[in-house]
Amino acid sequence: MAGKVSLVGAGPGDPELLTIRALRLLQSADVVLHDDLIGAQILEIASKTAHIRSVGKRCGRKKIRQDEINALLISYASFGLRVVRLKSGDPLLFGRAGEEIEALRKAQVDFEIVPGVTSASAAGAALGAPLTQRNKASAVVFLTSHQAADRSTQWTTYLHSGATLAIYMPGADHAGTSASLVGAGIPLETPCAIVSQASTKDQRIHRTTVYGLPGAPPLPAPTILLVGEVFRIEETQAHRTSDRVMPVLHEPVFASPKFDVFADNQVVWGD
Amino acid sequence: MAGKVSLVGAGPGDPELLTIRALRLLQSADVVLHDDLIGAQILEIASKTAHIRSVGKRCGRKKIRQDEINALLISYASFGLRVVRLKSGDPLLFGRAGEEIEALRKAQVDFEIVPGVTSASAAGAALGAPLTQRNKASAVVFLTSHQAADRSTQWTTYLHSGATLAIYMPGADHAGTSASLVGAGIPLETPCAIVSQASTKDQRIHRTTVYGLPGAPPLPAPTILLVGEVFRIEETQAHRTSDRVMPVLHEPVFASPKFDVFADNQVVWGD
Repeated sequence: MAGKVSLVGAGPGDPELLTIRALRLLQSADVVLHDDLIGAQILEIASKTAHIRSVGKRCGRKKIRQDEINALLISYASFGLRVVRLKSGDPLLFGRAGEEIEALRKAQVDFEIVPGVTSASAAGAALGAPLTQRNKASAVVFLTSHQAADRSTQWTTYLHSGATLAIYMPGADHAGTSASLVGAGIPLETPCAIVSQASTKDQRIHRTTVYGLPGAPPLPAPTILLVGEVFRIEETQAHRTSDRVMPVLHEPVFASPKFDVFADNQVVWGD
Repeated sequence: MAGKVSLVGAGPGDPELLTIRALRLLQSADVVLHDDLIGAQILEIASKTAHIRSVGKRCGRKKIRQDEINALLISYASFGLRVVRLKSGDPLLFGRAGEEIEALRKAQVDFEIVPGVTSASAAGAALGAPLTQRNKASAVVFLTSHQAADRSTQWTTYLHSGATLAIYMPGADHAGTSASLVGAGIPLETPCAIVSQASTKDQRIHRTTVYGLPGAPPLPAPTILLVGEVFRIEETQAHRTSDRVMPVLHEPVFASPKFDVFADNQVVWGD
């Protein structure tokens, strides 16, 4: 039997933000190869008989190279196994999926891509702010902090065009990021927010401006930095800045589910 | 009892790409107000007792204004109802969620935002291509075709910076879009692809270049236009261009589900 690799987006962190397809694939997987930042609640969803292996590049003991991950995927699939390659957020955004796809194609291994909810969407939800808005932000740019240092002139254009910036993996050098933004001509008063562990019960939000960014506290990874006028808090709603707009899980939904099947054939997870 | 509005992303079209949270909210909603392009398979998931109402702005009979939608949301919630405002893709991307959020805040109506899988992710999955890739596309810009006509100079910078473009609602004027891209200095040979009804059983892909774009056929909405080097098909895989990389549903998963609860307390939808 031919194996198959599913490149699956795990979403931003909250297990409830997995897609139904991701849930099903995790439940039927023989092998799950996951990144570092996938939470335990999500891994618990996988079949109890599945081999679960971290291939995170920051996973302590040994640094695993991308070509080693590629080889693992091909190897497991060649044994006829159903392999889930689980990536934070959406697999096609900053997930190095391109290299894995290329390796799988070359090895003629059957694969599929299952998109997921990306962190910027969850961070926007946490802030209660849209990423795009008519007459305010007509576009949104997803980039990484790597661009911060190298490409400040391009940042200028992004923001001057009214685009919201969603900076993935912004790191802890907030002063450097702020300097890059300022150097790019972005006004000091431009609102920004760091969202840590968006959508999870440990979610934390730090709202500031480009000017105040250097004073932002270090927050646990994964974080995302959102920059743009859409994140400006109006005076009238300033008292609501600490609202947790998106409800988060306080206990594992999947730990001991109760299933109620109703007459109209719908399943509901128990509380 | 106080009502609540959930602004929920329905994902790109495949019901399996709904999040678990979206599924639960649909199943418990009293009222579902949905956009035009939400498929019947997804609406069927809603509680059979729910009041389901299209508020799509292209829904034939009567054009509904944004302020009328806002008033409906507030009105239903003020009756103590659980309202799901269902939007295609992710609610925070080109969904005019900002205006609804502002109205709900002003009316002091409790609300939450449930992010969803955006169409660009599903379109990338359909093409088997990442949206970002090291040394090739360091960023991705999500924008609408509105920017095509007005902001060609900005497009130049986007693409020169190595960003992938995901153009939502590109419309049928492919010649105009191509001209805007060319006018922005984008090389004629830059790969692009139109993905129609991404992730659904009716998904269609038209791969071309900026040069060939004017000859692209009209495809059913919703469509998305992806532009960038990440979509270049290598010679070695050119024979695979018609692959449907992402599996799609051929029949409703939810029409008559069979549930198997295993010893390890996991639910699996029947085939």
